[in-house]
Amino acid sequence: MRTSIATVSLSGSLTEKLTAASRAGFDGVEIFENDLLASPLTPEEIRARCADLGLTIDLYQPMRDVEALPEEEFARALRRARHKFELMRRLGTDTVLVCSSVSPHAVDDDDLAAGQLSRLADLAREHGVRVAYEALAWGRHISTWDHAWRVVESADHPALGTCLDSFHILSRGSEPKDLGGIADIPGEKIFFLQLADAPLLAMDVLQWSRHYRCFPGQGGFDVAGLLRHVLRAGYTGPLSLEVFNDVFRQSEAGPTAVDARRSLLTLQESVGLAAPPAPAAPTGVAFAELVTPDAAPVSAVLGALGFARTARHRGKPVDLWERGEARVLVNTGPAERREGTRLAAVGLESPDPRGAARRAEALLAPVLPRRRAPGDAPLEAVAAPDGTELFFCATGRPGLPDWRADFEDTGVVADADADADAVAEAEADAAWRVDHLSLTQPWHQFDEAALFHRGVLGLRPQESVDVADPYGLLRSRAVSTDDGAVRIVLTVGAAPTDDTAHAQHIALATDDVVAAARAYRAAGGTLLPIPANYYDDLAARFEFADGELETYRELGILYDRDGYGEFRHCYTHTVGRLFFELVQRDGGHRGYGAANAPVRLAAQHAARGLTGG
Amino acid sequence: MRTSIATVSLSGSLTEKLTAASRAGFDGVEIFENDLLASPLTPEEIRARCADLGLTIDLYQPMRDVEALPEEEFARALRRARHKFELMRRLGTDTVLVCSSVSPHAVDDDDLAAGQLSRLADLAREHGVRVAYEALAWGRHISTWDHAWRVVESADHPALGTCLDSFHILSRGSEPKDLGGIADIPGEKIFFLQLADAPLLAMDVLQWSRHYRCFPGQGGFDVAGLLRHVLRAGYTGPLSLEVFNDVFRQSEAGPTAVDARRSLLTLQESVGLAAPPAPAAPTGVAFAELVTPDAAPVSAVLGALGFARTARHRGKPVDLWERGEARVLVNTGPAERREGTRLAAVGLESPDPRGAARRAEALLAPVLPRRRAPGDAPLEAVAAPDGTELFFCATGRPGLPDWRADFEDTGVVADADADADAVAEAEADAAWRVDHLSLTQPWHQFDEAALFHRGVLGLRPQESVDVADPYGLLRSRAVSTDDGAVRIVLTVGAAPTDDTAHAQHIALATDDVVAAARAYRAAGGTLLPIPANYYDDLAARFEFADGELETYRELGILYDRDGYGEFRHCYTHTVGRLFFELVQRDGGHRGYGAANAPVRLAAQHAARGLTGG
Repeated sequence: MRTSIATVSLSGSLTEKLTAASRAGFDGVEIFENDLLASPLTPEEIRARCADLGLTIDLYQPMRDVEALPEEEFARALRRARHKFELMRRLGTDTVLVCSSVSPHAVDDDDLAAGQLSRLADLAREHGVRVAYEALAWGRHISTWDHAWRVVESADHPALGTCLDSFHILSRGSEPKDLGGIADIPGEKIFFLQLADAPLLAMDVLQWSRHYRCFPGQGGFDVAGLLRHVLRAGYTGPLSLEVFNDVFRQSEAGPTAVDARRSLLTLQESVGLAAPPAPAAPTGVAFAELVTPDAAPVSAVLGALGFARTARHRGKPVDLWERGEARVLVNTGPAERREGTRLAAVGLESPDPRGAARRAEALLAPVLPRRRAPGDAPLEAVAAPDGTELFFCATGRPGLPDWRADFEDTGVVADADADADAVAEAEADAAWRVDHLSLTQPWHQFDEAALFHRGVLGLRPQESVDVADPYGLLRSRAVSTDDGAVRIVLTVGAAPTDDTAHAQHIALATDDVVAAARAYRAAGGTLLPIPANYYDDLAARFEFADGELETYRELGILYDRDGYGEFRHCYTHTVGRLFFELVQRDGGHRGYGAANAPVRLAAQHAARGLTGG
Repeated sequence: MRTSIATVSLSGSLTEKLTAASRAGFDGVEIFENDLLASPLTPEEIRARCADLGLTIDLYQPMRDVEALPEEEFARALRRARHKFELMRRLGTDTVLVCSSVSPHAVDDDDLAAGQLSRLADLAREHGVRVAYEALAWGRHISTWDHAWRVVESADHPALGTCLDSFHILSRGSEPKDLGGIADIPGEKIFFLQLADAPLLAMDVLQWSRHYRCFPGQGGFDVAGLLRHVLRAGYTGPLSLEVFNDVFRQSEAGPTAVDARRSLLTLQESVGLAAPPAPAAPTGVAFAELVTPDAAPVSAVLGALGFARTARHRGKPVDLWERGEARVLVNTGPAERREGTRLAAVGLESPDPRGAARRAEALLAPVLPRRRAPGDAPLEAVAAPDGTELFFCATGRPGLPDWRADFEDTGVVADADADADAVAEAEADAAWRVDHLSLTQPWHQFDEAALFHRGVLGLRPQESVDVADPYGLLRSRAVSTDDGAVRIVLTVGAAPTDDTAHAQHIALATDDVVAAARAYRAAGGTLLPIPANYYDDLAARFEFADGELETYRELGILYDRDGYGEFRHCYTHTVGRLFFELVQRDGGHRGYGAANAPVRLAAQHAARGLTGG
């Protein structure tokens, strides 16, 4: 099916919006009236611009307060309509959106509404225009899709049909299972379909609609369920996104349009209208790659954490550090040194690296060009919305090229220290893996990131949580595989300028965080100091075995508990924009320490104050 | 009465919060538990810090899920409480806030609730603590002030009283007239009073409470009406602000604390608890002062607008430009040249300049030091929250020093050109005045600014309106005198980084905007071009006399209409961060052209693109 997007969904001038929609691969646009009014282009020029860009103009919108009016006001509405139909002829578009009246003068009289819509349709037909009538969720007398359809049906006019809008239908609490009647509308009478999602908020529906809509898959609506009903009705028009969102209004139009198209592709896939390569969810984290202008500080932390520098890339200044199944690459390549120490890439263990990359590409993830030296393993990589490079790769799996083939052993063996504790150590090592990665998202791309990780990588998003930083409220949302083998925490600051959330981190799982923290300290590592007041509060909230709390207090270990099990964790100091977390997750605990995050964030602010960094 | 503020209302570390509260003149604080947990200071150190800062700790808060629980859970709650009472002893505070249970295990049994609160109060009394029990608006079984009070009354324990919170009471839609029962509570049983305001939003009350509270006078609640009932009850404790607000969380603690104290002072005045110098609302705009590194471009615009350079300051590089009652100062002083051309000061015609300044000072407006040359008129001035200097002054009024005394005539007379149209021109001149000033607000200070202009200047705030800029949604709120003699439009961008709203403007009223626009063009001025599509839309919406619309189209004049009358306006090009608007306001029109603002903003973006500025 053809895809379309309303210009109001994108930021910028009309020209910028059209260009972005075209580049992202949309087939057409809805022209939002205010975008046209504010444009210096004439309607003819807009028509030509769209044609040049390969875009059709699928809808002109909106016309308001047209039906169920006293005759004198209806006459004024017809006068306005005549002007707009003439404008549509100049634009070269043949469908106009009419929203149900919100006028205080509108009358609760379906016959009057049908009669006036029919007269409007007469006028429209003279101009070669079709009228798509839509129920606004806050319409004065007509506010539901079925009510609007009954009025259209009784008007029985060839130039009058209905427009269905997922926001207006689903925001009223309708479940798709209650929407079976949509399939009974003759498909050719559904003149248009507008798609939007929204987070589930208990708020005034008009404000909700104007500020918080988002692209399908980014909110809480079952847009796919609704779409199935509409397809069953026989609708063949475009799938068009109409989204009002305060964040998108401020975001660059180009990336927003790509995000929008990815949303539609994912939606089309879920109802069988598109078949990109099937998802192949990752089965683990193969490696995390840090870039740094100076390897020494981060190498010191890794060393103290018990990692060994086991290999070095054959052609690039990249070291491989390992402990158990946890692998960290430290890259000091010249092109990567500009932004200080940061987490730049993630290797995802993939059952089908090639297929995963093909899916990512089909879902509009930018494929990264890899300058490969002869003999290098072919690594499939795409960029996430935050710029993190995602590699789809295999570690020691038969039949698949191993990414480590490009590395040359240093002779240091990761899992066997030569000292007396070697066996115990090797056992402890076996439990080490990456528990989760925490990636700071650009403010404008938080919703996009969750959709990306779900659609492209097949990860499941959890609920967003608010986290109180001393200097603002952060939002945090985890995406993970069902078995927890891959967990990524997406975090965003309170506002575009907020830099409190800018540190990323790598959380390393161990089966004994106390031993790991002690060993790290003994090796010269420094742990983030946690205030004593926190432990007094733990004592009030939980009962601990003798000495347990004192151990946590001594080391700065934080504690949480959920219905599944326990979570113990502590933090290294921050190097550049990065720190490490040590995590012990018992009994299937599902959280990430959100309850402790305010204390951790305050401690990090305090530590930064002390070091002046 | 003593004033207090909850630490959660301010941004930063606990130390920063305490310092800000003390500097703003609060007598005490409520310590929010999470602020304590995250602080590296011990309770004893916090106590000492507060004492050093002259702050009492009036409340420790909150304790949750204590009452109406199964016995086993209540035992755990008592265990937690014992720890907290011990902590409070170390802190040196004697009142704890207990919120009504939200636990799914809580039972709907007032006797059980009263019994358990009584047992909690027994334990509290042993530690010298008083329990202030408050109904959360979303409490599971107890969610109203009167229900909470009935439970406290039936428990009848000397260490148990109630805490009243204006948010929890007024967010449930209670009108103060329905709250007369509050006055019947024995005053000594109201252990604490927490004050917050909030905008009237139809949304989930928990989200509303956690993100959108604001200081009294900044929202839509009748906090003063509630306070009167509480005072009638005989309450003598502190007036304490407890505000959760996403913006305040990100704002510097110092200015927020001053804003908070100003809010309380205004509230205290409104219920007769404080008597700052009475307000003396301004009666007009005496002048607008621009600062600029280069007077030529803005002087050219003023000249083309028909202003005459009538006088020059005796001691500073400041020119006075006049047309009718509109006066603009152009200041090229070296200290003022850094930020380009901008609106830096406003002279407000005041019936009592001295009194107005004393009131502003009493309401914590920073009084500006004026380095005056001998003989200069004494000018009273304070700074608004956005940094704009506000002068309280008199223009040609007997018995008051005239601010123009510092200026020396240039010999040019404003109101009498030598040409043939002199008489008509002079008549037209008489109508010229400043219609309104549009001031861009720092993102964090929008609510503060409205309260400042209301409390300090006696202006009345109108509703906030959203204005769609192509690159984000702006918010705009007018404050004005009832007769419209002074109108200021406060505008704020969509986010802290948003620079789309950064142009300020001076709107000049004339009684013939067409003539004024033509004369300006004839004198070489350029008007902001408005797209033709806008006029096609006007033709669809309104009927005009023959030729009228063509005139608007030719000149770029925008048009609006409300229930009172008509509004015609057009814009000059932008110089630095400033532009001028010409306004013709007929029949008592009350608006500011908000409906046309999206078209104007898009046109300004387009013009900027063309000039590369």
